Amino acid sequence: MAGQPVIESVEVRIFSTERGTVHAQPVPGQDRGGVDLALLVLRDSDGQEGYAVGQPEVLRPAQLRDHIAPLLVGRPVFGREAILADVYRRQRGQQAHLPERTICRIDVALWDLQARRLGQPVWRLLGGARPRVPAYASTMRGDDVPGGLTDPRAFADFAVALAERGYRAIKLHTWHPAYGEEPDPRRDIAACQAARDAVGPRVELMLDPYHWYSRTDALSLGRALEELGFLWLEEPMAETSMAAYRWLSDNLRIPVVGPETVAGRSQARADWIAAGATAISRIGPLNGGGITPCLKALHTADSFGMNCEIHGSGAASLALVAATNVSRWYERGMLHPLVDYETPPPHLRAIVDPLDPDGTVPLSEEPGVGEHLDLDYIEAHRKAAY
Amino acid sequence: MAGQPVIESVEVRIFSTERGTVHAQPVPGQDRGGVDLALLVLRDSDGQEGYAVGQPEVLRPAQLRDHIAPLLVGRPVFGREAILADVYRRQRGQQAHLPERTICRIDVALWDLQARRLGQPVWRLLGGARPRVPAYASTMRGDDVPGGLTDPRAFADFAVALAERGYRAIKLHTWHPAYGEEPDPRRDIAACQAARDAVGPRVELMLDPYHWYSRTDALSLGRALEELGFLWLEEPMAETSMAAYRWLSDNLRIPVVGPETVAGRSQARADWIAAGATAISRIGPLNGGGITPCLKALHTADSFGMNCEIHGSGAASLALVAATNVSRWYERGMLHPLVDYETPPPHLRAIVDPLDPDGTVPLSEEPGVGEHLDLDYIEAHRKAAY
Repeated sequence: MAGQPVIESVEVRIFSTERGTVHAQPVPGQDRGGVDLALLVLRDSDGQEGYAVGQPEVLRPAQLRDHIAPLLVGRPVFGREAILADVYRRQRGQQAHLPERTICRIDVALWDLQARRLGQPVWRLLGGARPRVPAYASTMRGDDVPGGLTDPRAFADFAVALAERGYRAIKLHTWHPAYGEEPDPRRDIAACQAARDAVGPRVELMLDPYHWYSRTDALSLGRALEELGFLWLEEPMAETSMAAYRWLSDNLRIPVVGPETVAGRSQARADWIAAGATAISRIGPLNGGGITPCLKALHTADSFGMNCEIHGSGAASLALVAATNVSRWYERGMLHPLVDYETPPPHLRAIVDPLDPDGTVPLSEEPGVGEHLDLDYIEAHRKAAY
Repeated sequence: MAGQPVIESVEVRIFSTERGTVHAQPVPGQDRGGVDLALLVLRDSDGQEGYAVGQPEVLRPAQLRDHIAPLLVGRPVFGREAILADVYRRQRGQQAHLPERTICRIDVALWDLQARRLGQPVWRLLGGARPRVPAYASTMRGDDVPGGLTDPRAFADFAVALAERGYRAIKLHTWHPAYGEEPDPRRDIAACQAARDAVGPRVELMLDPYHWYSRTDALSLGRALEELGFLWLEEPMAETSMAAYRWLSDNLRIPVVGPETVAGRSQARADWIAAGATAISRIGPLNGGGITPCLKALHTADSFGMNCEIHGSGAASLALVAATNVSRWYERGMLHPLVDYETPPPHLRAIVDPLDPDGTVPLSEEPGVGEHLDLDYIEAHRKAAY
């Protein structure tokens, strides 16, 4: 056979588009609005390209050129573990520390390149467990936008609409007091009660509230959710304290899910699992290091007989959920009464996660991560780097 | 793109060959001898085949036909996690319980089929960390064969020969009293002392002794190895007691490695890691469930910042060692002064693990697991199933 392909170039293309994906969410009550996004392009010695999208802030062309290209160019396309080890090691002691979200895009683009070369969707390369996955509706946070998620009643009405749309599960993101209010577990409980009353017992409900409650506020919130038959409680406290989560899990019957935001990729998840800090693990490909660390976290959770839920929507998340039986749900959203989630922004040929009436999302057989990029649109809307 | 390929047939071909691989090791002091082996063949809807070799006892044609083919035929080739979940679940409550070594071959053949379709070697699909891996020489057990590994002096002489061959590390398998003798840690220590005296401090040494020592015998053995600067102590006690290993690890400075033989695939490894039972984990593809559970065990160990050494030689082991940076060594052997390890048996075009003078083994770029099967030879030497 021919020699192994190697990575030949690393490039970032800035382009203008409209909000409407995980990388640039619409703002409720406003027009979708224009936005700039960045496309990371890895090209190999046979001209095959692999892609990842991110905000320009995490895909800065000069940073990629100066600090990442030297690690990637000339390396075998199928040398994932070797490349990532070098990228990780580079982070130690460097002045030009790269954001973890940058590293995520490098990993996603590498998987996309590999999968496009192999003619397979990433979810099949990762394990191919399920060609269709159940989705939960993930709401945007509570707000004060007229017609938005302003009070418990609004969450109740929206939950009914989502259940009618076919969702078998709904996760509420309640209020992160951004409007001068105090954190209030009673208000969260009122929203959860209203949602449960509205949809009845047959729709699963989860809660992702304000993230900086005290242990005791988180405990009383969790106990209320137990009464309401919620499926899980997610990130009610700062995740910098694993001990706080262990205490909370020890004192609640409802599964506590996490961690979502801590550094450390799959290794932090292993620590939380070994410590008994949560009943269900959690990691996401766009903030937890990319697809590779998420696969390791899924395999680690599998080794402990534990579920691991994938944080966030998007093509990479969907691929990971479908890869194994360790994740139960795909997180679809963020959703809001005033936001159209179903129409793709113009740089995508289609949304990555079409919802069928039974509340499931079918996986694509298209080679790659599954982002459905419209490369012609992106090329036509390129901007100078900034 | 065309539809996903599905598995169309599951077949076992019995063939006659000569000893000389991990599946049929030569007997020291005797001719290599004729032996029957079995080839598991998965064929997909495009006619692509994937293979795994095993002893006829673990690849019984009727068993595969009656119990495995119904689970595999019609399933997507890239539906690994879905297929394996069904195979695992089938084991519960079934009269016709399949040996784990049978399941290993199913998984290996599935990886071989996937990799052949994708035109890549398995080690690159698994992570592609290293195109060349250091090997340790793994000796056969102590014996009473004239010219064999009969006493400490024989181990010392053989260790010198292996070091001269280029090995940077040597693992002794000392006596498993098969000849009417009692287990004797002092005899093991004498062999280790002789080997260390013979090769000096620059060659790494490991020990895999009799497996049923008491805790206290294992402790005194381990302390002697600490004095001799050994790299690890492997399976000195029955692995059915994780508690015994935890106790041993708590009381020794030398790393204890394991488990090698316990059931439970990657989940047992997670339990041992979480319990602090060993300093280095261990699993093998031909007895631990196949390549997939080994990858999960490697990822689990990686998540805990722990090494995981792969048990046993052969193509699947080599692929796993090269896949990540979690395994330090490839186990090459079993080796013996009277056995030619370098000449392939006639059903292989080449040995899977050629050793370079620097003690490393280069990985093959051939698509598949890397077994180098001579399918023409196998076809010409087929036998009726029995």
